[in-house]
Amino acid sequence: MSQKGLGATARLLITCDDRPGIVATVTGFLYNHGVNITALDQHSTDPSGGTFFMRLEFQTPHLDVSRTALERGFAEVVAARFGMQWHISYASDLKRMAILVSKTDHGLLELLWRWRRGELPAQVTMVISNHDTLRGAVEDFGVPFHLVPVSAEDRPAAEQRLLELLGDQTEVIVLARYMQVLSEGFVAHYPQRIINIHHSFLPAFAGADPYKQAHERGVKLIGATAHYATAQLDAGPIIEQDVIRVSHRHPVAELRRLGRDIERQVLARAVAWHLEDRIIVHGNKTVVFV
Amino acid sequence: MSQKGLGATARLLITCDDRPGIVATVTGFLYNHGVNITALDQHSTDPSGGTFFMRLEFQTPHLDVSRTALERGFAEVVAARFGMQWHISYASDLKRMAILVSKTDHGLLELLWRWRRGELPAQVTMVISNHDTLRGAVEDFGVPFHLVPVSAEDRPAAEQRLLELLGDQTEVIVLARYMQVLSEGFVAHYPQRIINIHHSFLPAFAGADPYKQAHERGVKLIGATAHYATAQLDAGPIIEQDVIRVSHRHPVAELRRLGRDIERQVLARAVAWHLEDRIIVHGNKTVVFV
Amino acid sequence: MSQKGLGATARLLITCDDRPGIVATVTGFLYNHGVNITALDQHSTDPSGGTFFMRLEFQTPHLDVSRTALERGFAEVVAARFGMQWHISYASDLKRMAILVSKTDHGLLELLWRWRRGELPAQVTMVISNHDTLRGAVEDFGVPFHLVPVSAEDRPAAEQRLLELLGDQTEVIVLARYMQVLSEGFVAHYPQRIINIHHSFLPAFAGADPYKQAHERGVKLIGATAHYATAQLDAGPIIEQDVIRVSHRHPVAELRRLGRDIERQVLARAVAWHLEDRIIVHGNKTVVFV
Amino acid sequence: MSQKGLGATARLLITCDDRPGIVATVTGFLYNHGVNITALDQHSTDPSGGTFFMRLEFQTPHLDVSRTALERGFAEVVAARFGMQWHISYASDLKRMAILVSKTDHGLLELLWRWRRGELPAQVTMVISNHDTLRGAVEDFGVPFHLVPVSAEDRPAAEQRLLELLGDQTEVIVLARYMQVLSEGFVAHYPQRIINIHHSFLPAFAGADPYKQAHERGVKLIGATAHYATAQLDAGPIIEQDVIRVSHRHPVAELRRLGRDIERQVLARAVAWHLEDRIIVHGNKTVVFV
Repeated sequence: MSQKGLGATARLLITCDDRPGIVATVTGFLYNHGVNITALDQHSTDPSGGTFFMRLEFQTPHLDVSRTALERGFAEVVAARFGMQWHISYASDLKRMAILVSKTDHGLLELLWRWRRGELPAQVTMVISNHDTLRGAVEDFGVPFHLVPVSAEDRPAAEQRLLELLGDQTEVIVLARYMQVLSEGFVAHYPQRIINIHHSFLPAFAGADPYKQAHERGVKLIGATAHYATAQLDAGPIIEQDVIRVSHRHPVAELRRLGRDIERQVLARAVAWHLEDRIIVHGNKTVVFV
Repeated sequence: MSQKGLGATARLLITCDDRPGIVATVTGFLYNHGVNITALDQHSTDPSGGTFFMRLEFQTPHLDVSRTALERGFAEVVAARFGMQWHISYASDLKRMAILVSKTDHGLLELLWRWRRGELPAQVTMVISNHDTLRGAVEDFGVPFHLVPVSAEDRPAAEQRLLELLGDQTEVIVLARYMQVLSEGFVAHYPQRIINIHHSFLPAFAGADPYKQAHERGVKLIGATAHYATAQLDAGPIIEQDVIRVSHRHPVAELRRLGRDIERQVLARAVAWHLEDRIIVHGNKTVVFV
Repeated sequence: MSQKGLGATARLLITCDDRPGIVATVTGFLYNHGVNITALDQHSTDPSGGTFFMRLEFQTPHLDVSRTALERGFAEVVAARFGMQWHISYASDLKRMAILVSKTDHGLLELLWRWRRGELPAQVTMVISNHDTLRGAVEDFGVPFHLVPVSAEDRPAAEQRLLELLGDQTEVIVLARYMQVLSEGFVAHYPQRIINIHHSFLPAFAGADPYKQAHERGVKLIGATAHYATAQLDAGPIIEQDVIRVSHRHPVAELRRLGRDIERQVLARAVAWHLEDRIIVHGNKTVVFV
Repeated sequence: MSQKGLGATARLLITCDDRPGIVATVTGFLYNHGVNITALDQHSTDPSGGTFFMRLEFQTPHLDVSRTALERGFAEVVAARFGMQWHISYASDLKRMAILVSKTDHGLLELLWRWRRGELPAQVTMVISNHDTLRGAVEDFGVPFHLVPVSAEDRPAAEQRLLELLGDQTEVIVLARYMQVLSEGFVAHYPQRIINIHHSFLPAFAGADPYKQAHERGVKLIGATAHYATAQLDAGPIIEQDVIRVSHRHPVAELRRLGRDIERQVLARAVAWHLEDRIIVHGNKTVVFV
């Protein structure tokens, strides 16, 4: 996409109680301001008393007001009437994204490689690791690499260092096989902004060494799960999952190898959807408009 | 679904040139007549000068006018303005469906079995075959069975008999492995109403004995394709496709056996989508809103 | 397969400690008795000190001795030397199979339908249910139907009735959605002969109402698992699993409907593999040679 | 795998007319020379008069003779008797592999990335391209990059240059989106040693711009095919194929993007299987033992 193309594209995400008239009101408002809707998805958990979700993608070349005025107008005329939670983002405002990783590189490289090809519309501001192993690979992509070692004693100090590096400007944090548990406080600092990849088909095999768990149980498919990190480990809202067939022929090492391919794809899809504002979190679940 | 539930559900399919204001106008019109939109999908081939497609599902318990008045109003106020091709159908008006089959029963039985479970909202009016083989199986489901033999000499007479049986009231004709070629005239009589299942991943292996062709080529996946029948054999708009993995270990007979499972699923999905008014044909392609 | 074809086919399953010379000894023995090996699969958990598994399919038209003599010879010359657990079965000896079901018919009908087509080489001796709902559907297939009601008070009596019906002659028992818990004693009576279908991707969502559990967790794939029943519910050796993609759009009822298609396929594959002697149970896992 | 592990592993591929005694003779010969068989796969197109294929993986720590003596013995004692085509390779002799590419990098990078991780047991001797675009990316991996421009007039000269670079020592040539047609003579120089990735589910959409063809036909799945190059374009023996689901929502550019992920996986699997001696070509088909 050209910068010009990006500049014109905006996305509106809405959550509210479902009742008649929402679509007509939202689309009427946008149309009256010269906006051209190019994609529209909606979902209702129940037309009677349920929750309504909506995603609009629209072009604003003929916008008759400023962004600020459009948003203020929307807030007053539309959102207030339906009690909406809503957010407009602009494709030209690339989200600032940081990637945290330990020593395993497949998720990280898949993201950097897709990012360089233009498949992930973000500004990758930094990669942080608790090991120095991947510094060279990261710097080859022209991305700053920060080493933040973590030891059992200085965990709070390490997290403090992470917070200083990430600051309040980081809009997306991807845990691409970052093998350190983050504190409840840290996670709460970035609500619905931390995407983790877990190498199992959750809720099966949460916790440590899921491929070993899978091998012991003798499952015939192994999987990967991308989810938003929450205070409770491996229990946050699931964004995407996929599986691959395995058999008695695959020892744990082979499950790890096969699983890498699924992890890469699942993580890449989840991050792309987040960057394109396709995900609405509702309770402990996600609505993903793809 | 209760009859009451069905009675209230209507579906609107729209095709027109894309330009700003369509969604706002359509949803505004419906809202103003007391209609509650419960599903909305749209697609545009190109926001600038492309074709726009839309499917709405709505409930009409509070409709302030009759069906006739609603449709007349929509035609005058909305459709005329945008030059729309459109159609409203009502879930309570079950489509009259006939199934044509030769001797192979798996597609037929899958449809009848799902229909009996309530998964296919249709009125199955008859099964027609050029062999008497499946009469018992069909009549067990309480569905009328008609034998219409076909020989090379009397093909036109056989088609005439088919036309008499099917008449103009039949809204969907499913060719569930009907191994006779239908004439251009017959197909033209039921435009976009004849669904065929072909036992290959089209356009690969069109024509006779696709599993044999697949075996000879040594493909590693075999497939099935459901499509609308057109004058040109195996070349109509594709509705759905799926594949299954095979290997050198599978002789042709085994491909046929494995393929049956895929054919059953692909055909069942295509028929369900058609019955639920989820498909818009555009040129030689389909837009399927699922 | 013709009866003649079946008559000539035998299968040998072997489990023993791995050490050099097993394949050469087994195949040499068979060759020397005029046996023609037509399929051979082997697996070793570890060539040094692991467990070795083998499946041979062979034709015996030129067998130079009786079945009894062949088996006695194998026991003395080969099996004793390597300390093998082994079993020879003959394709012409169709396994006696019973199906237990409650009210849900999709697994049952899939099995009966495939069985009638010749896809499941078994002798279906009976269907037993704790409800009378499916009697007609079963009897249409010419299969005896037995009603064995179960209530909380008379569970032992009901199991006693099951044991009387099934006897010691039943070689395979399929729980095709039989919604009653079977006692440890009952299960122990038919070790590695009871196949259950659970409607989730185990070990996720063991126990009651897995589709409801899946919906609450917000998973993006739902699955089905066929496994051998053991004393511990939903924890026996897994034979086969598969999944299907779902989304936020699918309420629990829709998960049930979509899941049925996966359950049918997974159960049918597992039963076919068992009937074709393709499965070796080892600890709590299976080796499946397909 | 440690070099020690690799050093001990050998693989034997056999093709011959099927008749009784092959397995017993082959495994008996190897056992008698102190070889430990760790994997064995076989396939017969027909036990009566068909072709027999076999792959053995064995360890030679206790080999009682030299490699040369083992092979000579096998030739004389076993292969001659059954008229076998056969080949033994040793895992420690890494195959010399060259990659040809034009400007598109995804297949190339996937191979290099997996190779660096140790997933592709080869010696990557060079990358050759008709453009200079990917020089930097290749040299980052420490692999020599050669530019061999091709224009319509000097095609034979360019091929001559390729032959000089590749020589007779190159054992595997991967066309990772090399957009030049190779002459029949060139292809014949490397029989069953050139692996091509075609970005469609062959035989559908052979030739130029398969994603555009797929879009025009309106298929619901797109695919990729890895095959051995032969004189006839896109018609050689298929090694591996896979597909991904698409819909009316995907313009050609999006098919290209989605297709890349499938191409990468299919190509990587095919190359790995070739390097691990898992493929036997038979006529225009492959037997792949995985």
